[in-house]
Amino acid sequence: MTLWARIEHAGRARIGVVEGETIHLHEGDLFAPGAAAGETVSVAAARWLVPAEPTKMVALWNNFRAAAEKNGWAIPAEPLTFIKTPNSFNAHGQPIPVPKSYDGRVAYEGELGIVIGKACTAVPVEEAAAHILGYTCVNDVTALELLQRDPSFPQWTRAKNFDGFGCVGPVVATGLDPLDLAVRTLVNGRERQSYRVDDMIFPPAELVSRISRDMTLMPGDVIACGTSLGVLPMKPGTVIEVVIDGIGTLCNQYG
Amino acid sequence: MTLWARIEHAGRARIGVVEGETIHLHEGDLFAPGAAAGETVSVAAARWLVPAEPTKMVALWNNFRAAAEKNGWAIPAEPLTFIKTPNSFNAHGQPIPVPKSYDGRVAYEGELGIVIGKACTAVPVEEAAAHILGYTCVNDVTALELLQRDPSFPQWTRAKNFDGFGCVGPVVATGLDPLDLAVRTLVNGRERQSYRVDDMIFPPAELVSRISRDMTLMPGDVIACGTSLGVLPMKPGTVIEVVIDGIGTLCNQYG
Repeated sequence: MTLWARIEHAGRARIGVVEGETIHLHEGDLFAPGAAAGETVSVAAARWLVPAEPTKMVALWNNFRAAAEKNGWAIPAEPLTFIKTPNSFNAHGQPIPVPKSYDGRVAYEGELGIVIGKACTAVPVEEAAAHILGYTCVNDVTALELLQRDPSFPQWTRAKNFDGFGCVGPVVATGLDPLDLAVRTLVNGRERQSYRVDDMIFPPAELVSRISRDMTLMPGDVIACGTSLGVLPMKPGTVIEVVIDGIGTLCNQYG
Repeated sequence: MTLWARIEHAGRARIGVVEGETIHLHEGDLFAPGAAAGETVSVAAARWLVPAEPTKMVALWNNFRAAAEKNGWAIPAEPLTFIKTPNSFNAHGQPIPVPKSYDGRVAYEGELGIVIGKACTAVPVEEAAAHILGYTCVNDVTALELLQRDPSFPQWTRAKNFDGFGCVGPVVATGLDPLDLAVRTLVNGRERQSYRVDDMIFPPAELVSRISRDMTLMPGDVIACGTSLGVLPMKPGTVIEVVIDGIGTLCNQYG
């Protein structure tokens, strides 16, 4: 298992392997990493970047059985997706800006993120794992009251895509079995979400396969796998940590 | 008025000014064009690229009064948007692939596209024009039956984002007043859409201003302004031309 970070170092984006409190820089990029460059940066001093450079983030609604059951949602016949756009992408450690054009409730959603490693077009489910580079943590921030504000058209695009509403990181972890993972979300240090990935309706390999039948997925693209129970609104000043043991902790303050 | 093209020439992307049947290549990019390079390519021989490189395409639903009236849609209080993703982007002259994972009806939608020239965050409406580089033609292809296939969640993302479903081009026209423009769509040479831009509910300057309050718009991003009456399904082999006098003709064959 390797934890790959992307950080800004000496004015450019660099990749590196996280080992304990040290990031060992490498040349190359995530998809063709070079040898270790002999340079190190301490984890505490790193200026984190979104660990991949997605052309798109495809995100899921209603992908956990526990949430579907509690909310009375039917189990969907196919993955139900929306898009998070590049202006929403936000790195570990960066604040989530409070929208100036919306004053309703804003919620965190702790999620597992799949990072694509190779271009995927209609990938069979049994070949999906070979197209996945690794996994990361996602906080899929949502402006709750926009979703249903217009009775004729659910506004998923606006609700999900304020600047900085797509937090991703801190690293891409390779060599993990995603079905062994659990997602926890800590709100000002208090655990508010805790769920296992194996409760997914469409698990990661199935998501990659099915989404890639419609939309070619590119290296670096992220699939945010949806959230489960425990979503709550945040007040400005709230610190949200999405914790996935084996990957790490994505930490962002709202406001 | 200038018509800027992007074409592939000698293995790289180049910009150029279209004059009659000739493209005069320039160095630089659309946002910082250099002087004419002294090289020309004939329009007929050009390998067209999408004329900008959007990080996102924001597209409108229900933005024309005539369509709202005929369909019985309420006039929306705010622009209702969805996203077209980079895998959907498609250049003038390229085929629109028939989806392999969907066998329902697929429709064209001829639209005006706004190409952003400068990063926009909460741009006042009176400053919007200065942030617009120019205008282009869009064919916002739609897999109609996916939209309402799941009763709990309208699938705008899937319906709009099959590979090649976002046709843009052929050029970015600068120095136009968009409210003077009209959009026509020819289906195998027969006119099926013809509407004026000044029938928009939210005209271009208003769209840039309002969308930029929520989402930072980046240079090259495209806003597809929505379509009006005359949308119809296409059979494989259908040639669709989106014609905007003053910009040009975006031509793509379905299948």
